[in-house]
Amino acid sequence: MPDTTVHRRDDVIAAAERLFAERGFQATSVRDIAEVLHLQPGSLYAHIESKDDLLWDIVTAAADRFFAAVQPVVDSDLVTTEKLRRLITAHVGVVTSNLSAAAVYSTEWRHLEDQRCRQFAGRRDEYEAIVRGLVHACIRQGVFAAVDEKFATLLILSSINWIYQWYSPDGPMTPEEIARKLTDMLFNGLRRAGA
Amino acid sequence: MPDTTVHRRDDVIAAAERLFAERGFQATSVRDIAEVLHLQPGSLYAHIESKDDLLWDIVTAAADRFFAAVQPVVDSDLVTTEKLRRLITAHVGVVTSNLSAAAVYSTEWRHLEDQRCRQFAGRRDEYEAIVRGLVHACIRQGVFAAVDEKFATLLILSSINWIYQWYSPDGPMTPEEIARKLTDMLFNGLRRAGA
Repeated sequence: MPDTTVHRRDDVIAAAERLFAERGFQATSVRDIAEVLHLQPGSLYAHIESKDDLLWDIVTAAADRFFAAVQPVVDSDLVTTEKLRRLITAHVGVVTSNLSAAAVYSTEWRHLEDQRCRQFAGRRDEYEAIVRGLVHACIRQGVFAAVDEKFATLLILSSINWIYQWYSPDGPMTPEEIARKLTDMLFNGLRRAGA
Repeated sequence: MPDTTVHRRDDVIAAAERLFAERGFQATSVRDIAEVLHLQPGSLYAHIESKDDLLWDIVTAAADRFFAAVQPVVDSDLVTTEKLRRLITAHVGVVTSNLSAAAVYSTEWRHLEDQRCRQFAGRRDEYEAIVRGLVHACIRQGVFAAVDEKFATLLILSSINWIYQWYSPDGPMTPEEIARKLTDMLFNGLRRAGA
């Protein structure tokens, strides 16, 4: 009697995250989600209002996790480069702790309905502004060269978001090692000092 | 009489690229492609065998363009860092010249049928090996620091592939300027010399 199984809303979210990440939001139906949970689609509606609501819940929860992870770093008394380093570490931690959610957050949010899409884009902009603020401070303090601030921010964000594409929990590097290597390369460049 | 319009295969490919990039491969039907071309689905089959064939044609054509753009650079007599710089420039040129194709190449290839998927993954590996070969040579020659070769390669590829996500032909930077800034940042890092 699979359909009488009590499912927690978390299970529904996890299943939707996985399917949206693998197949894409638009190619996933409520029926597909119900199927992997061994539920009738009708029973699934006890847990959710609509597929759009699921996507909204997934991407806002992901955004919440990113903000929650980096806010203490930004609010800290650390020097700015160390803040940026720890922000990158915190971000990589969030990405690697839930790769499906990171994939949906990175690529599927554009399928949100208009108003939600704008609202979500606003939060992404807010997050980008936090990173850009740190890059700006590093340049102002003379620790970073006079690089293009916006472009540097995009490079940092793209390299930390891309990780969901290749990271494997069974791989040789821990999330902390990935963050350290990445930060070293971004800060110091590939060139050997003096070369 | 829209259905009597003579369509070139290129138009079909361009329409499919756009739809696969916007909605994803799995969420796009042959009917959708026919619709934007003002064709009956039946007429579309005069141009294509299947949706899978379209995806295959798109991603292999994109791969061909990447290889064609970088091979002369690799075969040249330039010093290795200059080869890497020009490879990045050539790659950015291919991405920015067709953003939809770059998006499909980056994200939708995983929907290829098994054998084709493996074949495509092989070509991506081959391309990655070219970039890695240059990174390796730069390290061996002492121009690059003793960085993690594979990781540096991933960073380079992720930052040049990600460009399709934010590049706009109406934006302030030309593809050449993007490539130059990106290469400078990757090579020299964000840190001010001596800081």
